[in-house]
Amino acid sequence: MNQPLKTALSPQQLETLLTIGKVRSISMGEYFIRAGETPRKFALLKTGLFRYVYINNKGIEYTKGILLEGDFLSSYSAMITQTPSFFFIEALEDAELLEIDYNNWLELLHKDATWAPFLIKMLEKAFIKKEKRERELLLLDASTRYSNFLKEYPNIEHRLRQHIIASYLGIQPESLSRIKKKLRP
Amino acid sequence: MNQPLKTALSPQQLETLLTIGKVRSISMGEYFIRAGETPRKFALLKTGLFRYVYINNKGIEYTKGILLEGDFLSSYSAMITQTPSFFFIEALEDAELLEIDYNNWLELLHKDATWAPFLIKMLEKAFIKKEKRERELLLLDASTRYSNFLKEYPNIEHRLRQHIIASYLGIQPESLSRIKKKLRP
Repeated sequence: MNQPLKTALSPQQLETLLTIGKVRSISMGEYFIRAGETPRKFALLKTGLFRYVYINNKGIEYTKGILLEGDFLSSYSAMITQTPSFFFIEALEDAELLEIDYNNWLELLHKDATWAPFLIKMLEKAFIKKEKRERELLLLDASTRYSNFLKEYPNIEHRLRQHIIASYLGIQPESLSRIKKKLRP
Repeated sequence: MNQPLKTALSPQQLETLLTIGKVRSISMGEYFIRAGETPRKFALLKTGLFRYVYINNKGIEYTKGILLEGDFLSSYSAMITQTPSFFFIEALEDAELLEIDYNNWLELLHKDATWAPFLIKMLEKAFIKKEKRERELLLLDASTRYSNFLKEYPNIEHRLRQHIIASYLGIQPESLSRIKKKLRP
């Protein structure tokens, strides 16, 4: 589990999540949530790698986020408003999840006051991440975005296909190849 | 005050905010927060209009968000991490604010459990708004984004200069003129 989550969850809270959650395997290429589905569950990623991906009406993919061990997977806006998800949550590796039913989670949140500060921490973490990503797309050139990506996700490059990294950086795969060639010592 | 905020705040909570807050006027063109400053306050907008704006190293403006009466103004990521803000919070009209000191807010949040659900609602609202904006920029053409903008912010167009609307939509002012000409009946 990654460090931020470890810090945010007390051992007791982790225990509770393990009790209400269901361990589930999912194979590479499968979806945890598809665009168009109204999400009734979210998950804690135990092992494996996922992405959030939008596909526009021309079939162009845009990788909105990359999820690692210890991250929560959810189409959050859609789940809390009970409306269809606009993006897919796709397994990029065979993975193991702790799946949590949204209604069970709501029950927990409303009956036990220790969960609100946890949820606030998670929302703030997500907010900071989203704002950073927006800023980088707007203010930094592609080469700097790629360098930052390598720093933010160390040792992940060999786990992702190049077109996915490019679609995360908002560039064409050919541009990514050019950037990598230039950065090589 | 706008509807979502009215619903989220109890009369008692609004009373408390009025007690710890300080009413302040700010003139059109002034900044509530500047890029580079570490925010120690946020505000509830009583009257007037603001924007969040990034300015990149080529001097190009990108209007990240538009804030109306009843909205909270904050460089939230920067405030909670106590790091410099990356964007400006600029008054687009003479405005009146209820300014709240961040430390006073934290005190309130920690001593009174009724504030956590309120903060969760505000964070979720911001998260939904951010995700919608990201999706529209990625998946919709400029003309549809403009139509959606008019629906989302009715009667606001005459309060904003055209280059600000264009920079909110992520297009050049000339493109906005073309779109408006086409949409005219």
